Amino acid sequence: MVGLGPGDAGLLCPKALKAIEDAQVIVGYRPYVDMVQEPLKAGKTVITTGMRGELDRVGRALEQAALGLSTVVVSSGDPGVYGMAGLVLEVVEKKGLWDQVQVEVLPGIPALTAAAALLGAPLAHDFAVVSLSDLLTPWELIETRLACAAQADFVIVLYNPRSPKRHWQLGRACEIASEHRGPKTPVGLVCQAFRPGQKIGVFPLAGFDPGAADMLSIVFIGNSQTRMAKGRMFTPRGYMEKYE
Amino acid sequence: MVGLGPGDAGLLCPKALKAIEDAQVIVGYRPYVDMVQEPLKAGKTVITTGMRGELDRVGRALEQAALGLSTVVVSSGDPGVYGMAGLVLEVVEKKGLWDQVQVEVLPGIPALTAAAALLGAPLAHDFAVVSLSDLLTPWELIETRLACAAQADFVIVLYNPRSPKRHWQLGRACEIASEHRGPKTPVGLVCQAFRPGQKIGVFPLAGFDPGAADMLSIVFIGNSQTRMAKGRMFTPRGYMEKYE
Repeated sequence: MVGLGPGDAGLLCPKALKAIEDAQVIVGYRPYVDMVQEPLKAGKTVITTGMRGELDRVGRALEQAALGLSTVVVSSGDPGVYGMAGLVLEVVEKKGLWDQVQVEVLPGIPALTAAAALLGAPLAHDFAVVSLSDLLTPWELIETRLACAAQADFVIVLYNPRSPKRHWQLGRACEIASEHRGPKTPVGLVCQAFRPGQKIGVFPLAGFDPGAADMLSIVFIGNSQTRMAKGRMFTPRGYMEKYE
Repeated sequence: MVGLGPGDAGLLCPKALKAIEDAQVIVGYRPYVDMVQEPLKAGKTVITTGMRGELDRVGRALEQAALGLSTVVVSSGDPGVYGMAGLVLEVVEKKGLWDQVQVEVLPGIPALTAAAALLGAPLAHDFAVVSLSDLLTPWELIETRLACAAQADFVIVLYNPRSPKRHWQLGRACEIASEHRGPKTPVGLVCQAFRPGQKIGVFPLAGFDPGAADMLSIVFIGNSQTRMAKGRMFTPRGYMEKYE
């Protein structure tokens, strides 16, 4: 399980690169496999699947690994954050494959810190990460998590904020945040972090348009201390109050 | 602001490496500067400070940058996650330095995903990240965050779980989690991820000894679905229930 980071070659770790170089088989969701540079794929078995092909992908990767082939499953970002690493381990446990395959997870720069870096430093204090995808999680649980995170003054990071079918959830998430935060709370939006077409914006919560987000965006809702200035968003941790 | 990742050269991104190579000045907390390989420091001004020297460090870095010198502030992990990036932006805003310095944040592999990778995939679903350091944050707020995160069934990641002076907080955090999670909930402990002296363990919540953690550990408390098997910890996202 290898994390490619955001996609920029400058943010791919040497350890991940080496694992791909050394692999005999590369497995992944098509857009992620496309992120791997062509020369790295030469001479290797490449298995790609489409959206929602997660179980298929894992099954095929485990098949290859069980044959004794060195197999990498590539994910963008970090494979452990809403990535495939969890499902691989789940399947290995369910099918009792512990003795047949050896699973190693190599971290990558996750989308949340790549996006945060572009905004400034929204995550400099406690934060909660919530996916707005209700495909596998009941919406009621997502709402509970949003409400609890807002109530406890966590900075909130939203994954999968919007898709053509998922058009009202981000607006509802902002509404829930508004019940606990002021209208000037900074909201940061990053689309395509470190990729062609990158877009960044910081807005007051009351003026944020959920329609500006898409499937590949990450949205940050500040805590009560988060500030915005000169297009940057940052969350003080309290050093200045304490020491000055 | 450059993130060094966990410390292993294989987990330092090329972009971060290049920023350090190109810099004229390197500033950082001493142990982080020590993580930078010696040849990279040759011929550069190196400014190190001790623990709690955060404001001093930022002040000195901004001084150098305002002189027109290319200056990197190095942090382990990601500089935006409980790192110095927030404080730098805060000081730049407070002192009105936006026109004198240009601040760029380069992400690094954060401790939370490095540690998670070693355990398996504890962060494959929604999670909340809480620092147990009450130096800058009132303990009451930390408890509120822990309680809300536990109640909403977030996987919980604990930074700064224990220090010689902070010896009861991790036990209290586990107690709060126990009010909402069963005694068999997996707890993962990672000390010195990807560094010499690395230690990893997974325990049931009821059998976890907070004394095993130290200042450089990361602790993961699973959600109600998190599993442990063969020394691994992973959180199902629901693919198997949905598609099989």
